[in-house]
Amino acid sequence: MSETETTILTVAELGRRVEAILRGAGLNAVQAGAVARVIVAGERDACKSHGIYRIEGVLRTVKAGKVDPQAAPELLAQEAPAILRVDARAGFANPAVELGAPALAERARALGVAALAINDCTHFSALWPEVEILTGMGFAALALCPSYATVAPTGGNRPLLGTNPLAFGWPRPGRTPYVFDFATSVAARGEIELHRRAGRPLPEGWAIDAEGRPTTSPAAALSGAMLPFGGHKGSAIGTMIELLAGIMIGDLTSAEALEQLGSTALSPAHGELLLAFSPEAFAAGRTGAPFDRAERLFETIAGQGARLPSQRRFAARARSEAEGIRLTAAEIALLDRQLALGLEAVT
Amino acid sequence: MSETETTILTVAELGRRVEAILRGAGLNAVQAGAVARVIVAGERDACKSHGIYRIEGVLRTVKAGKVDPQAAPELLAQEAPAILRVDARAGFANPAVELGAPALAERARALGVAALAINDCTHFSALWPEVEILTGMGFAALALCPSYATVAPTGGNRPLLGTNPLAFGWPRPGRTPYVFDFATSVAARGEIELHRRAGRPLPEGWAIDAEGRPTTSPAAALSGAMLPFGGHKGSAIGTMIELLAGIMIGDLTSAEALEQLGSTALSPAHGELLLAFSPEAFAAGRTGAPFDRAERLFETIAGQGARLPSQRRFAARARSEAEGIRLTAAEIALLDRQLALGLEAVT
Repeated sequence: MSETETTILTVAELGRRVEAILRGAGLNAVQAGAVARVIVAGERDACKSHGIYRIEGVLRTVKAGKVDPQAAPELLAQEAPAILRVDARAGFANPAVELGAPALAERARALGVAALAINDCTHFSALWPEVEILTGMGFAALALCPSYATVAPTGGNRPLLGTNPLAFGWPRPGRTPYVFDFATSVAARGEIELHRRAGRPLPEGWAIDAEGRPTTSPAAALSGAMLPFGGHKGSAIGTMIELLAGIMIGDLTSAEALEQLGSTALSPAHGELLLAFSPEAFAAGRTGAPFDRAERLFETIAGQGARLPSQRRFAARARSEAEGIRLTAAEIALLDRQLALGLEAVT
Repeated sequence: MSETETTILTVAELGRRVEAILRGAGLNAVQAGAVARVIVAGERDACKSHGIYRIEGVLRTVKAGKVDPQAAPELLAQEAPAILRVDARAGFANPAVELGAPALAERARALGVAALAINDCTHFSALWPEVEILTGMGFAALALCPSYATVAPTGGNRPLLGTNPLAFGWPRPGRTPYVFDFATSVAARGEIELHRRAGRPLPEGWAIDAEGRPTTSPAAALSGAMLPFGGHKGSAIGTMIELLAGIMIGDLTSAEALEQLGSTALSPAHGELLLAFSPEAFAAGRTGAPFDRAERLFETIAGQGARLPSQRRFAARARSEAEGIRLTAAEIALLDRQLALGLEAVT
């Protein structure tokens, strides 16, 4: 088998294969199905860092006993009409989101805006899959969650905030939605690691060392702290995410998640906050159809030569759906090994 | 009267004086009261750019017929239980917010989260006064609004987005709240103007010229476009604000506001979106008191030597409340002139 040999799988075939690996590693059907869906979505959308590469992280987190592979998430009785809560019961976030999203949609349709708090979950994917579930149901959506403490607040000198992602989506009827999803750190931790492996210095402004001094050394950055994007503004947004999606929903902050986990090599355990807005309800009684007006805004942005977020991802998705997903021989071999060995595939 | 002579007024005295100027310029009691309160709050908090300096902008916007000084904002019948709407009736935003905030608080208390859309208002102050109304009632709050098109999307070449402010607040019982409020452009338009007057070049990355090329010339920037903060991430947030606080609530985008106004010298007309969250409702049934946990987060941030946002403003507020507000002879003379001449004080 040559290094350049590739195999093409349909999205569904890859889905079955990933799900079988996860089932073999001891995940129950609800955990394996939901986790496989987001892993395959990452691979399909050419987000390699959120694709099959993540299977290893899932297995490692299961093997370390940091997630319950048999968890059945539970939609709790409502205490406030506009707030839903799903207890992930120490399972992954994704099955909890899949369970809560239809109920959130029902509340947002009835009330105009509603929130879903996910508690006690292990996060490991991006937030765009959650946002796209809601845009697919016709809602504008915000999703936010803490991470583990690897980012210093602007002006500070030690890790306290997480890379705290923020994702937003707006439905575009008949098309892929407007979606963005980004870390509120200037770079993802994986990018620091890539610079370290390549022996390249970091750009200025990405990180500080363990003494809080600016550094361009990836090694010094990994033992120091990353910095928020956009200076004090990004730092404020990262802090807001700790408050709303950690403290307010009664779940861990990034500092608490790291303390509990003891390692940044495992998926962070915490909560997550989703908000769903009904554009029809907000626009009721006003002139102008919100979805049509939004299209004009997007056309103007694209007409300036500026890229709408996620367009590269959606182009890859269209290719994958038409032509299948191409994996290298090494990737296929790893999937085979993970299927054969289960949790023993990770050390 | 020497140039260095100063006068000290109490916060209440300055309030009466500003309100009298606005009443004299034709604002009714509800408009003059609410607008005077935010102007005095700016002066009290040593935000000179949002203090009595803004009176002239109010008078100019009234004189140009772009705002109705006699408007009585109206709380509309609810179409969705979690969405409130105040029609500002072409008056200023502030009386509309003051009218809607207690109703928003009642909804957020009952439902857990609720939204207030302000429509057809003229915005002229910062958003932190609105957020502080809600934190003062015990709610976490988000406020956002478009502006007028002066900012190009990242990768674009013409103004399309506004400086689109984003403000957030978290209540701190017995203390001043955690509050941030910033433009999603890298700098405020006023800062470009200050560089122009001082003959200083702009920092790199602030602006592009009319051909879409990066520029450090303030004049070229003023005829070109400002850039979003934090690159594509800030651009995405600015776009989200156009969608949620412009299009979704059935009000103007920044491009439409500029087109309707024909000038960036007047206050922008548009809508505004506020969200109120009840931390108690979100934390219900979970361990840990959210306000106590938030204090520990703030202590850790401050303990690193990082500044919490708005601390300088709150320190100025404490000084003003204890010692009064110190105005220069020139400022007092301008207030006297504005009181004597009303709308004739502006050209």
